[in-house]
Amino acid sequence: MANFKENSSTLPIKANDNQLRNHFLYKILNPESICIFGANNDLLSTMGSMQMRNIKTGFKGKIYPIHLKLEEVQGYKAYKSVLDLPGIPDLAFIILPPHIVPQILEECGRKGIKRAIITSGGFRESRHSDGNTLSEKIDEIAKRYNIRFIGPNCLGVYNGWYGSDTNEHYLMTFWPYFVPDLGKISIISQSGTIAAQTFWQAKNLGVKIGKSISIGNERNIDIVDILEFCKNDPQTDVIGLYIEEIKRGKEFIRLAREITSIKPIVGIYAGGTEAATRSIMSHTGAIAGDSKIYEGVFKETGIISTNSVIDFLYYLRTFSYAQSYNLFPKGKRVGIITSSGGSATLMTKTCDLYGLEVPEFSKELQKELSNYIPHTASGSNPIDITFFENFYEFFVTIPKLIMNSGEVDCILFDGVWDFGEVINMIEKSGSPVDEKIKDFPKIFYPGFLKPIIRFMRKKFIPMFFCGPQLYSYPLYKEFLNRDIPIFELWDEAPKCMSMLVNYSEYRTKFS
Amino acid sequence: MANFKENSSTLPIKANDNQLRNHFLYKILNPESICIFGANNDLLSTMGSMQMRNIKTGFKGKIYPIHLKLEEVQGYKAYKSVLDLPGIPDLAFIILPPHIVPQILEECGRKGIKRAIITSGGFRESRHSDGNTLSEKIDEIAKRYNIRFIGPNCLGVYNGWYGSDTNEHYLMTFWPYFVPDLGKISIISQSGTIAAQTFWQAKNLGVKIGKSISIGNERNIDIVDILEFCKNDPQTDVIGLYIEEIKRGKEFIRLAREITSIKPIVGIYAGGTEAATRSIMSHTGAIAGDSKIYEGVFKETGIISTNSVIDFLYYLRTFSYAQSYNLFPKGKRVGIITSSGGSATLMTKTCDLYGLEVPEFSKELQKELSNYIPHTASGSNPIDITFFENFYEFFVTIPKLIMNSGEVDCILFDGVWDFGEVINMIEKSGSPVDEKIKDFPKIFYPGFLKPIIRFMRKKFIPMFFCGPQLYSYPLYKEFLNRDIPIFELWDEAPKCMSMLVNYSEYRTKFS
Repeated sequence: MANFKENSSTLPIKANDNQLRNHFLYKILNPESICIFGANNDLLSTMGSMQMRNIKTGFKGKIYPIHLKLEEVQGYKAYKSVLDLPGIPDLAFIILPPHIVPQILEECGRKGIKRAIITSGGFRESRHSDGNTLSEKIDEIAKRYNIRFIGPNCLGVYNGWYGSDTNEHYLMTFWPYFVPDLGKISIISQSGTIAAQTFWQAKNLGVKIGKSISIGNERNIDIVDILEFCKNDPQTDVIGLYIEEIKRGKEFIRLAREITSIKPIVGIYAGGTEAATRSIMSHTGAIAGDSKIYEGVFKETGIISTNSVIDFLYYLRTFSYAQSYNLFPKGKRVGIITSSGGSATLMTKTCDLYGLEVPEFSKELQKELSNYIPHTASGSNPIDITFFENFYEFFVTIPKLIMNSGEVDCILFDGVWDFGEVINMIEKSGSPVDEKIKDFPKIFYPGFLKPIIRFMRKKFIPMFFCGPQLYSYPLYKEFLNRDIPIFELWDEAPKCMSMLVNYSEYRTKFS
Repeated sequence: MANFKENSSTLPIKANDNQLRNHFLYKILNPESICIFGANNDLLSTMGSMQMRNIKTGFKGKIYPIHLKLEEVQGYKAYKSVLDLPGIPDLAFIILPPHIVPQILEECGRKGIKRAIITSGGFRESRHSDGNTLSEKIDEIAKRYNIRFIGPNCLGVYNGWYGSDTNEHYLMTFWPYFVPDLGKISIISQSGTIAAQTFWQAKNLGVKIGKSISIGNERNIDIVDILEFCKNDPQTDVIGLYIEEIKRGKEFIRLAREITSIKPIVGIYAGGTEAATRSIMSHTGAIAGDSKIYEGVFKETGIISTNSVIDFLYYLRTFSYAQSYNLFPKGKRVGIITSSGGSATLMTKTCDLYGLEVPEFSKELQKELSNYIPHTASGSNPIDITFFENFYEFFVTIPKLIMNSGEVDCILFDGVWDFGEVINMIEKSGSPVDEKIKDFPKIFYPGFLKPIIRFMRKKFIPMFFCGPQLYSYPLYKEFLNRDIPIFELWDEAPKCMSMLVNYSEYRTKFS
């Protein structure tokens, strides 16, 4: 199992990394103590209680619930007021009705608290006229006490890198009880849904997320602030953005340009149409702009753009993998290996549609390949081997030949990977099952996958795997656990490869 | 659990339905006896053996393996020659090296067999010059003996409707050991991969397939023949096509137009680019044409077109559902209900991009809705309820109000459906869990889903559900088992709704 924390020499953040430690976001992501306003003991009927339950789960610092009536909240001693606390917490987490928030923030200020997350909604996005007044009040209080805060109208933060070098500890203020596998993807989102609810799919697809920040109305800390932090953060390799508006346009463009030259950014801009603008207005209160302007900004700054959440997750995974192993294709020539003609044709067409080339192999290479593929099969690219008995030749020898040829920059490899069903079916039917086949899941990685992956990383020729089965299949998990990109079906692999090829080309301008 | 076979009055095919019974495809899909050439007892090293294993699994008629040396194949008495058989099988299934196929087909003809599936590859798609000669030989033999056959270079057929009214019996000549849930979707594919390997995803997504036919090189029976059968087949409601070429263009256009006025067709055309054409040439030997021509044909005939396999499956599911419950939206106005602002905005934008409208609700409707949504939430469309405690109001009352308003033609409903993790997490933490919540999975269908689905079907306003969790979650299965469309994430639901709206509009021209 690939464990970023163990493998990485940059982590945990070194004590002398003062630039990061002194950034005002650092204590929001890595607080040693939190006081929580708006949680009680009923874990289902209030969001604050669910959020406190989640904070408890991964956090190893001190937790101080503040509650007017309760003596104890979720096993922690409760205090009537923040002013009663024995020490000054690093972070205040506030989820209370909006009209109480100014008073609470004022008390936090008096106590000396310098960082806050305000989850409460009902500010400028509200249908009610006092939303803006309330916003101005909290601005003023924060300014007076020098408080930096995330929100309001947000879910807060997930920091998988919090506190230790295992997944055991993390900081999560979201409400769904689900944590993705740890990696160096950081998500910055003007939607709590995109920040938090993508975790289920992320876990399923092997999208390894280290940080996810729901920034809400950005009243104090905005997207530019967080980008600044991520730029220098050694635990951020790739950034995912969900944007409904950009407030500091110039700063955003300057910073995004700097970042994309070293760390890829994938962005969703959700506005740009009349109905979407209405939806955004009632969501974060932002006034969304023409999508052409945002498309222009994305293009100018090298941000990879999509409107689809599944593509967003796949692109993040793609870039995270490329960053981890420094695997960026040097051109757009794709080799396709498969045992099925239809998937070969579909992948070829998708490559074409996304600007990749699937060049016909040279006569020399085709001749070499013909030693390993059946008489009736095709070796011209795509290579459709139709049926194979020799696993080593299919999985290792053929891709090696192609990588050595210098005729492609990357490879798409399609197959039916998991034989569990075949084996079960045969056993059920009473026929004997070859021990070698029974052991296939065990020998698959050391015998086939490992040698070709090692070779690929040596040659710097990225190879993506795909097939018709599901991520829930044991052999698919083998790929994902070992941090090797595999895809369900044949649509996403060529698309992701195309994004990688384009970004690789873009980045060479800066090297 | 929705069981089409039980529910449908049209099935099994009535004995007096002579038009279908007399069609030459009928005995290929419903043989009472099969002879198999090219299977042995080694289930893993030859495709023919795997295919015979699959035929055995679902078939309840007589099976005659033909083998020169073996006395018994997979538990069945083997015969040295088809001429030795005690009776005349309805169907010959041939998977032997191509140069032997003419002789075998000749013997089948002499025996009196009238139907065959030739799986063997190595005909016109082969790199070798004798491929075309072999094709002409089998043409001539088939003509002389009046044999109709599917193939060569195909995987054959899956008929889930074969032989009985349960899933227990079926005819499947494919090699992967995986069968989808039964429904009225029929797939006709020039790729065995698309015909067979999509079954894993189909099962996962609830795409209920009744027939899937891999037609290979179409030397004798072609796509037009199968469309003709499907047109009259009461077990076909929706058709999926994977096309690399169309041989009988005029007939195809005439027939497809007739069919789409009553049964939707979803089509993938895989050719149209230089590399894809090369891939197709070595796949089925077809000469693929300009994709603009095919796009034109699809448009003219009302075929819903896509290049993506996942979209293909989702569109098939969408139309199958619409056909089963006669649920076609009367216009393009969408109501969106959610508890998350980001997903609301993204779905709204996707609706816009795909030509749907998300109209702002009337003041009257907004006022009515405001009784059921929190003070800070938005009821203008999208309705973002942000957080709810009253499940009945969220799941039933609000959608009913919107359906009754006459202001929308269809609804997208987004939510976090499965609370299993929440409950587990709370129990683990030692907190008490309300019995009502523990029972939520049990009461979800009768208490919430059933009343709103019933109302929706009465009002003819289709409603699609979506959310961030996975099809593997118990509550997602609850939707799928009850034949209610649910989607992972927020990309596909608006796309599918758009396809349904467009098709519904197209079809009104014929009514």
